[in-house]
Amino acid sequence: MQRIKCIISYDGSLFSGYQVQVDKRTVQGEIEAVLTKMHKTAVKVIASGRTDAGVHAYGQVIHFDTTLDIPAARWVQALNAMLPHDISVLSAEYAEPSFHARYDAKGKKYRYVIDLRKIRDPLKRNYSFHYPHDINVERIEKAIPYIVGTHDFSSFCAANTDVLDKVRTIYSIQCLLEGNQLTLTYSGNGFLYNMVRILTGTLVEIGNGKRKPEEMKDIISAMDRGAAGKTAPAQGLYLQEVYY
Amino acid sequence: MQRIKCIISYDGSLFSGYQVQVDKRTVQGEIEAVLTKMHKTAVKVIASGRTDAGVHAYGQVIHFDTTLDIPAARWVQALNAMLPHDISVLSAEYAEPSFHARYDAKGKKYRYVIDLRKIRDPLKRNYSFHYPHDINVERIEKAIPYIVGTHDFSSFCAANTDVLDKVRTIYSIQCLLEGNQLTLTYSGNGFLYNMVRILTGTLVEIGNGKRKPEEMKDIISAMDRGAAGKTAPAQGLYLQEVYY
Repeated sequence: MQRIKCIISYDGSLFSGYQVQVDKRTVQGEIEAVLTKMHKTAVKVIASGRTDAGVHAYGQVIHFDTTLDIPAARWVQALNAMLPHDISVLSAEYAEPSFHARYDAKGKKYRYVIDLRKIRDPLKRNYSFHYPHDINVERIEKAIPYIVGTHDFSSFCAANTDVLDKVRTIYSIQCLLEGNQLTLTYSGNGFLYNMVRILTGTLVEIGNGKRKPEEMKDIISAMDRGAAGKTAPAQGLYLQEVYY
Repeated sequence: MQRIKCIISYDGSLFSGYQVQVDKRTVQGEIEAVLTKMHKTAVKVIASGRTDAGVHAYGQVIHFDTTLDIPAARWVQALNAMLPHDISVLSAEYAEPSFHARYDAKGKKYRYVIDLRKIRDPLKRNYSFHYPHDINVERIEKAIPYIVGTHDFSSFCAANTDVLDKVRTIYSIQCLLEGNQLTLTYSGNGFLYNMVRILTGTLVEIGNGKRKPEEMKDIISAMDRGAAGKTAPAQGLYLQEVYY
């Protein structure tokens, strides 16, 4: 038995999220179906973490155990030949038997894409958050330093979670305006449920003038989801990288 | 009765092409349904031309006649509020009663996007042609001058057409390689059925070394569809602009 680590990419648009659910099309379900067919016995896949319905990935990491003797590079071809076209395996390697895609993850990088055009772009509807309102990027950049660092992020965690320790460290947040597209890139040691989407929703409200940049400090110290802004929609979110 | 001219954009992925067909979801069908609801009587929409299933548009032009007294800018909002999210009206204006979206079109610009990455990008599967093989851009650039100008393009026309005059003028073809993405932009006074896709398929074969750049001259003079390369897939094609 050997452990394989893969980096995968997917378009979240047509999935009910990453994690297997009965009678739903999920990323995990599709990959396990292919592996089970290859192995002629059930194979379970472990990811670095789940992503919600509509959320995309360019750098999700998974692992699974195999009894098949296939060179690492051939795993990429073999899986891509059988996977649906909205999932790709970008790389595969044999890992230590102790490697665990979820428990060994040291951090993650997420990207959030906002389309500021006045009229929605039909080709971006599944790949960005259409926000056709004024945004002052300087206001967002003023608010970012309050978020970076180690904090209890309870204010930025969806209510339906069973995680107790809500302290996380954000290493950096980059804010990039290119034409009408605003991209926020978050890097940190871990993210609570919906944390990137609530941070983004709050930063957008600050950029639009609904809240002051300095309010970010109070929102964090409130440790109350009600203090923060709206949850930005799933389709603008991309899991870019998992750090090990 | 007043004539309205609109520039529209759509994601072709979920449409059976532009033109109305019984029991199929089409761009024309969706727009006519919205206009018919607004006018409480059937309204017919005329476009600059059809696009096939899977083909996208950033600058399709349509016209229709209305008895409603709505300012031009409000037409954009009114239609976008009712249209499905894979169609957007980008602009609307009142036109001369004699304006005709199809007959008055003096030319068109199309863009064709090729993804050269070795492993397919799941997020681009509906928006580019995945060609994971070697391409030498210089070879494509050598072939382009043979195409530009006025020629009988019978070799680049799908068999199922009833157009008799196959002489068209190509003003320019730009070839741009950005990272792993190759974009071909075609501008001309008119294009035959599948012409951009067959030109692209042939240029790709030249870029890959399957054909010589100089062969393009012979392919054109053959006036035979069999002489040209494969038809590149619909999902890489974008109608960018219609000239009047």
